[in-house]
Amino acid sequence: MKDSIFLREVGLRDGLQLVKTHLSTEIKLAWISEQSKAGFGEIEVTSFVPQKLLPQFSDAEELMVASNNLPNLRASALVLNVKGAIRALECGTKKVTFVLSASEMHNKSNVKCSTDDSLAMFFDILNLVKEKKYNVEIAGAIATSFGCSIQGDVSERRVIDLAGKMLAAGASEIILADTVGYANPMQVKHLFSMLNSIIGKRHVAAHFHDTRGMGLANVVAAIDEGVRRFDSALGGLGGCPFAPGASGNIATEDCAYLLESMGFSTNVDFAKLLLLRKKLSSWLPNEKLEGRLGAARPAINFPTELISPLI
Amino acid sequence: MKDSIFLREVGLRDGLQLVKTHLSTEIKLAWISEQSKAGFGEIEVTSFVPQKLLPQFSDAEELMVASNNLPNLRASALVLNVKGAIRALECGTKKVTFVLSASEMHNKSNVKCSTDDSLAMFFDILNLVKEKKYNVEIAGAIATSFGCSIQGDVSERRVIDLAGKMLAAGASEIILADTVGYANPMQVKHLFSMLNSIIGKRHVAAHFHDTRGMGLANVVAAIDEGVRRFDSALGGLGGCPFAPGASGNIATEDCAYLLESMGFSTNVDFAKLLLLRKKLSSWLPNEKLEGRLGAARPAINFPTELISPLI
Repeated sequence: MKDSIFLREVGLRDGLQLVKTHLSTEIKLAWISEQSKAGFGEIEVTSFVPQKLLPQFSDAEELMVASNNLPNLRASALVLNVKGAIRALECGTKKVTFVLSASEMHNKSNVKCSTDDSLAMFFDILNLVKEKKYNVEIAGAIATSFGCSIQGDVSERRVIDLAGKMLAAGASEIILADTVGYANPMQVKHLFSMLNSIIGKRHVAAHFHDTRGMGLANVVAAIDEGVRRFDSALGGLGGCPFAPGASGNIATEDCAYLLESMGFSTNVDFAKLLLLRKKLSSWLPNEKLEGRLGAARPAINFPTELISPLI
Repeated sequence: MKDSIFLREVGLRDGLQLVKTHLSTEIKLAWISEQSKAGFGEIEVTSFVPQKLLPQFSDAEELMVASNNLPNLRASALVLNVKGAIRALECGTKKVTFVLSASEMHNKSNVKCSTDDSLAMFFDILNLVKEKKYNVEIAGAIATSFGCSIQGDVSERRVIDLAGKMLAAGASEIILADTVGYANPMQVKHLFSMLNSIIGKRHVAAHFHDTRGMGLANVVAAIDEGVRRFDSALGGLGGCPFAPGASGNIATEDCAYLLESMGFSTNVDFAKLLLLRKKLSSWLPNEKLEGRLGAARPAINFPTELISPLI
């Protein structure tokens, strides 16, 4: 029996955040549906942020309601404050990921308040959920956990402290995010090992960017520390607002391929996933998709049962 | 005191092998000289193969003689047979890397003979060196050590057996090469651990391609098994003849950045290296350079002493 690793697709949220081409709700739904059929049990489909800030997510409610009608899929959404959380809860979101930054300067730049103010919002959201008895899971994501492009170093103790407080308050999961691609495998091992010793392995996920090429090496380092949940974006969508041409999230197809090659089970159907990647490329003609597998194809000795016989 | 890792640049050989733009000897020498000044102690500058097969290397003798005049540099060259070795030795090459394939089918396709025939040539070359008392180091590289795009799986026992025989015959170093980008970190750990238990860590190097995005993760896996010597190509040059658009060798700049980030010393000056990468891009206008660091730049908390103050 293979050990399983769970991949959560975040291309529709983190991936589209900086993309100028506006994808229609219809196309987004086709993406979500086909990725779900390629074996993905959870997809972060949108972000509940003000429309004027990120017009790409102006269809958040409509998309969430439609995604919730798809079978075998947990559609999740990102929120940055109470207002966003209320929008997400009111349209029936089943999993909400609240993000704050371990870097004080990044948090101020991103959401115009201190990290402690963001943490207080997280507690407010959990209280609201309890009070109104929403059937929802609230995850806590810690951005810039491995360093910050404004502040530089980020304190590991601060990350662990925030993780502990969010989990104690009721977070279903803690996601350590390398928002700007600063993490290296040594650091990843160290931080997750500290986290494990304090909050345990069960509730931990990792979100890596490939900005400096270390994304998949960081995945392997996190696996060594027992992490079994990862975020990734199809075609490595994501980019970085401060580095034109820089790459974004780790590519879903490459990450899944790495994991299956290493003997883990991901539930991914590679033929369906690579076909969807081709479609994504046609939907976003101005974006350069990353990820190596699209051009290289799986190795000839890659297990054929992972490649759908239907395609 | 930091642990050191030695990077050998192979962009001028493995990287240029499939490149259509013919680089002049003058430009190649500028590349070699500037990369040497960026901290690289060994550069594989050419391949002694028939001119009609690879016209890119028709200046092998001239380039080797000129490279040997550069200070603080060991210029090495690749050979596939006795004829190539004689050419390399006669023009004063100080390090020759002989390549054979662990995959019988790859060896036949590449050099039109069996792997055992290639091994016999390697013994002949070592005998010739002894007989004529050449002042040269002969390394043995084993291509397709982690799988083959023609044959599929490659036997680990065969790789270990070849490594043992080459070392016993007098090879100064054994390089396990993932010629087609099939290796994964689990496999890398397993094979190097087997190799270590039989021939020891001292003489071992790794050569990874990033064809399926696993290149740097494989580097970290090899480091875990004590490997301290790696091949890489500036801008990730290399490609794959069987997969148009697929990426090639691991990118030197990303690999060095990963290693320094992890706390290893590489001796690389990143400002000089990234400046050279820009020049390389202008020398090869039709090639898409890989590697993330070129666009992303080093993190703001990256040690400034690694970035030359002269630039």
